[in-house]
Amino acid sequence: MSVLREEALHIHRVNKGKLEIKSKVQVLNAYDLSLAYSPGVAEPCKVIYEDKNKVYEYTMKGNMVAVVSDGTAVLGLGNIGPEAAMPVMEGKAVLFKSFAGVDAFPICLKTTDIDKIVETVKLLEPTFGGVNLEDIAAPNCFIIEERLKKEANIPVFHDDQHGTAIVTVAGLLNALKLVGKSISDIKVVLNGAGAAGIAIVKLLYHFGVRNAIMCDTKGAIFEGRTYGMNEIKEQVAKMTNLEKIEGTLADVIRGADVFIGVSVEGALTPEMVQSMNEDPIIFAMANPIPEIMPDVAKQYGAKVIGTGRSDFPNQVNNVLAFPGIFRGALDTHATHINEEMKVAAVHAIANLISDDELSPDYVIPAPFDPRVAPAVASAVAKAAIETGVARKIVDPEEIREKTRRLAAIGQN
Amino acid sequence: MSVLREEALHIHRVNKGKLEIKSKVQVLNAYDLSLAYSPGVAEPCKVIYEDKNKVYEYTMKGNMVAVVSDGTAVLGLGNIGPEAAMPVMEGKAVLFKSFAGVDAFPICLKTTDIDKIVETVKLLEPTFGGVNLEDIAAPNCFIIEERLKKEANIPVFHDDQHGTAIVTVAGLLNALKLVGKSISDIKVVLNGAGAAGIAIVKLLYHFGVRNAIMCDTKGAIFEGRTYGMNEIKEQVAKMTNLEKIEGTLADVIRGADVFIGVSVEGALTPEMVQSMNEDPIIFAMANPIPEIMPDVAKQYGAKVIGTGRSDFPNQVNNVLAFPGIFRGALDTHATHINEEMKVAAVHAIANLISDDELSPDYVIPAPFDPRVAPAVASAVAKAAIETGVARKIVDPEEIREKTRRLAAIGQN
Repeated sequence: MSVLREEALHIHRVNKGKLEIKSKVQVLNAYDLSLAYSPGVAEPCKVIYEDKNKVYEYTMKGNMVAVVSDGTAVLGLGNIGPEAAMPVMEGKAVLFKSFAGVDAFPICLKTTDIDKIVETVKLLEPTFGGVNLEDIAAPNCFIIEERLKKEANIPVFHDDQHGTAIVTVAGLLNALKLVGKSISDIKVVLNGAGAAGIAIVKLLYHFGVRNAIMCDTKGAIFEGRTYGMNEIKEQVAKMTNLEKIEGTLADVIRGADVFIGVSVEGALTPEMVQSMNEDPIIFAMANPIPEIMPDVAKQYGAKVIGTGRSDFPNQVNNVLAFPGIFRGALDTHATHINEEMKVAAVHAIANLISDDELSPDYVIPAPFDPRVAPAVASAVAKAAIETGVARKIVDPEEIREKTRRLAAIGQN
Repeated sequence: MSVLREEALHIHRVNKGKLEIKSKVQVLNAYDLSLAYSPGVAEPCKVIYEDKNKVYEYTMKGNMVAVVSDGTAVLGLGNIGPEAAMPVMEGKAVLFKSFAGVDAFPICLKTTDIDKIVETVKLLEPTFGGVNLEDIAAPNCFIIEERLKKEANIPVFHDDQHGTAIVTVAGLLNALKLVGKSISDIKVVLNGAGAAGIAIVKLLYHFGVRNAIMCDTKGAIFEGRTYGMNEIKEQVAKMTNLEKIEGTLADVIRGADVFIGVSVEGALTPEMVQSMNEDPIIFAMANPIPEIMPDVAKQYGAKVIGTGRSDFPNQVNNVLAFPGIFRGALDTHATHINEEMKVAAVHAIANLISDDELSPDYVIPAPFDPRVAPAVASAVAKAAIETGVARKIVDPEEIREKTRRLAAIGQN
């Protein structure tokens, strides 16, 4: 860790952060200046004044995403504040650009007030074509996302929720193929009732899961539970655990087909794995140390194991989703990122692995697989058009090609 | 105009605006990712969490300026709104980068409410090292600037006021050398009581002017005038026109040594020039057509003429000031851009023209003179350190060298 630490500090320090602004036009003489600035710049201004939608054609807005954080839930570090969150938001912007040519800019806000965050993002709308919410603590993140989805006219996406959910479900679809189970028959147990867990359970139900139980630190969540509940858990309780089973994780995981952990190191014991149904599927995504280590899980019978880590197979990495999702949403001038677009992203990621290639160690494509973002962007654009949230009709195949061309990865 | 119009529209359309985000680090494989993003990125986060000031060392903040507008006073186009203002703000960012290597980012706000603008800019402080207010209508621009200077912890500069004032006064100092007059003896008449005019008159008094009269569309402003006044004009009335002379521009310009116009085409007639004192100096900065055309002014006796236009000598172009001013302010982590820093910028610009080179057609350096931004940055940094607003002590000569190195202009 010490070498990584030194190297990470070094690249941030010598570069003074990771982002810079680049001009797409040269200004080396008076003529250049007269085009990029006064008097020529008045012409695009007038065009946009006549038709506000032209802002997508004549300015950076159409390719610019705000990466918005209040610094309250940064990585595993917690509430470290908006200044300390900056390196993460810059990093996110680097990934947007590297993986799908999306320009993204950190907006770290000196407030944790929901109203102020919502208001600020809405005031920034003329500048940005989309909003990626990042590392905002629950439950504020849910409320901010809900409100912005209603009140803003540009797509809003909370990556900690939906990015993780999309990649997890993609991996699950492939894992289920391997073990020959149908998604509508499986029993899923989730551990961790944070932003990601709740988004995962919602997306699972969208994909046909009918039997899931979510646990928090107090055990299984069920409707009518009187302790440790909040508005979001009440929502979860309404859709999951319809038999209102009480108990610890160890109690409810018996006979489960799938475990999904977005909780803490060591939460899943070997005994729990042994108590699961045949061919258990495990996504143990606690960071940096998973709920159970893959080798241990396998030893105790797990068939497929995914983690959040790059040094094990089947890494659930959000970078598989968000760059392509925004590429597709931006290029169609989508007003929202709706469920259908997320579903399209799931299938796009899952389908990159052919049945022949599929194996317990390969249910999720690698983060640097250059096919991913182009496939996701194309599928998301198609879904946006089909569901009527696109304000611009484009050829999804062109979006695929464009994403391939813009991505820095896959070029070397 | 039609060719320029087509070309200007073209470069904005084909590039989809003028700015993009560039990553300073490559992310082409898992190791790159582990440094720029998780888990390595946690290291600079932790360092900043321990000491918030380290945000200047490990993130983009220290070189990033917000170009903030509400779109209410854009170029000569007026209140065209924040979307239509975007091309200008992107253009401004291009100039920041091209002339002094300063990263700048447009923040076009969907509000004209003073409180909301001030609040938003303050909330954005973790992301930006400085704020350039742009094209905000008077009197809001004055109030917003005043409030932000008090309430924000990063330097705030309203370029429409101070940029224009700094370059005008620099030109005036050189013009006075030419005609052999002392600044404390001259009579100055200003026409136009907008943001620029008021900033100019304030800076002139700072430089020792004792006799100035400002006119608006209703004629000379004086203390006790009962018509067409506002808070800002009341301020002007207190410091200027101490004899409380009433009358039109034609009345008060008689015997003046200097005319400074930030008003409208044709406001200065040949007869008015003839009525001025010996060797009149004229800055006729109405755009795109000046208060009087240079050839006409000369014909009627003007000794030195400056305009806002690039096709005449002595262009008063803000680009001579703001890139270097922010370079100097950012590199010293200045808390403010104070009067002394503006004065330093005036002298830096004026002194680039040696006594030998000085001529009626050369009292202001050319916008693309590559010495300007380095000289301004260095002088501003020095002033920031000397007046105690610098939080970082640097060698002004290093700032000069750095600015020279970072500027794109002068490299070809």
